[in-house]
Amino acid sequence: MSKKKKDYRIPQETIRRLGLYLRSLRKLQQQNFTVVSSSQITSHLNITSDQFRKDLSYFGSLGKRGVGYSVDKLIKHLERVLGVDAECKIIVVGVGKLGSALLAYPGFQNFNFRIVAAFDNDIGKIGRVWEGVKIENILNMEEVVRSLGVKLAILTVPADAAQQVAEKLVACGVRGILNFAPTNLNLPRGIYVLNVDMATELMFLTYFSRKNLAG
Amino acid sequence: MSKKKKDYRIPQETIRRLGLYLRSLRKLQQQNFTVVSSSQITSHLNITSDQFRKDLSYFGSLGKRGVGYSVDKLIKHLERVLGVDAECKIIVVGVGKLGSALLAYPGFQNFNFRIVAAFDNDIGKIGRVWEGVKIENILNMEEVVRSLGVKLAILTVPADAAQQVAEKLVACGVRGILNFAPTNLNLPRGIYVLNVDMATELMFLTYFSRKNLAG
Repeated sequence: MSKKKKDYRIPQETIRRLGLYLRSLRKLQQQNFTVVSSSQITSHLNITSDQFRKDLSYFGSLGKRGVGYSVDKLIKHLERVLGVDAECKIIVVGVGKLGSALLAYPGFQNFNFRIVAAFDNDIGKIGRVWEGVKIENILNMEEVVRSLGVKLAILTVPADAAQQVAEKLVACGVRGILNFAPTNLNLPRGIYVLNVDMATELMFLTYFSRKNLAG
Repeated sequence: MSKKKKDYRIPQETIRRLGLYLRSLRKLQQQNFTVVSSSQITSHLNITSDQFRKDLSYFGSLGKRGVGYSVDKLIKHLERVLGVDAECKIIVVGVGKLGSALLAYPGFQNFNFRIVAAFDNDIGKIGRVWEGVKIENILNMEEVVRSLGVKLAILTVPADAAQQVAEKLVACGVRGILNFAPTNLNLPRGIYVLNVDMATELMFLTYFSRKNLAG
């Protein structure tokens, strides 16, 4: 059964939850836990232990019922599965209000993500160092991205510039884009775009918070 | 069959997609389209027409095969379903880098979301007006939130303050929280929390962008 499961398509929500488990495990590690139960890992996540075990089963289970999970081993395992076991270089494109806020975002630490460069087209910003990251001219983006071998980008340019900039990113080797511009990108297959659309998130929240009120 | 579907549990991803359809429809409306096909609505979303029809079927279908969807009617329908057909008041709690960036975020327009107040505990910020929104003392949060009848909050305080602030929000009537603090909130049942965790999103992206490289 568990062998067969590996052939199934892994649900996107499973992958998203793996990231949450990893975050939870990092916290437990900081609190000096070495062996933990599934319920300790999922306690603040609104996720059941059954769901947790099911999610892990796609990648080979590591825990034993009644024994628990080694924090260090499970962290390493999840990091390998997610592909964040080595440093992941990221760039931020568009150093406006949101872009500069993300350069300072503290949540990236502990997860091997490092912002290696930021880009803008504003002469007043180019050359400045913000949160330890130098803001480069967007015209040099291709050269910098290629030389650093960056595969991931955070896109925080205005909506009307997003498509053009995203195409440039793809042309210089970027494979995944976290898109904060409130527009959809039309890119070749094989490029993965994750849209973080605050309005869509708020609509989602509105629906469920109203549902809760009614129920 | 479609009548029975209404009784099923509606997948969260369906609700998330409804927001994307609404955004897509707004764009088509701005381009003066009055009747559109499902593929026009989903063209830039990486969502199939079948999925679109399935998502809509949970709430009673509005389109006719070969005739298409009235843009205005479908917008109104989706707004009603999501609960964003009337103005939704939101507050932003924590006017640091991310909070102030969100006050300026252009994506909320067109979706009936209005940020009615922002809160911080920094004396240097309190009383200032940022992007048309007055920054209030967080000590007055309860009073302001109650008097305005706010049900939704965007939480952008530091991680170590998030739980305490979230409990205060719940105490004064907030039912849904968009949480940007990189920590999990432990709140009573019936309160809906949506975590926007940039590190988790990036892990998700890393997984899929690597998968694409391999496949």
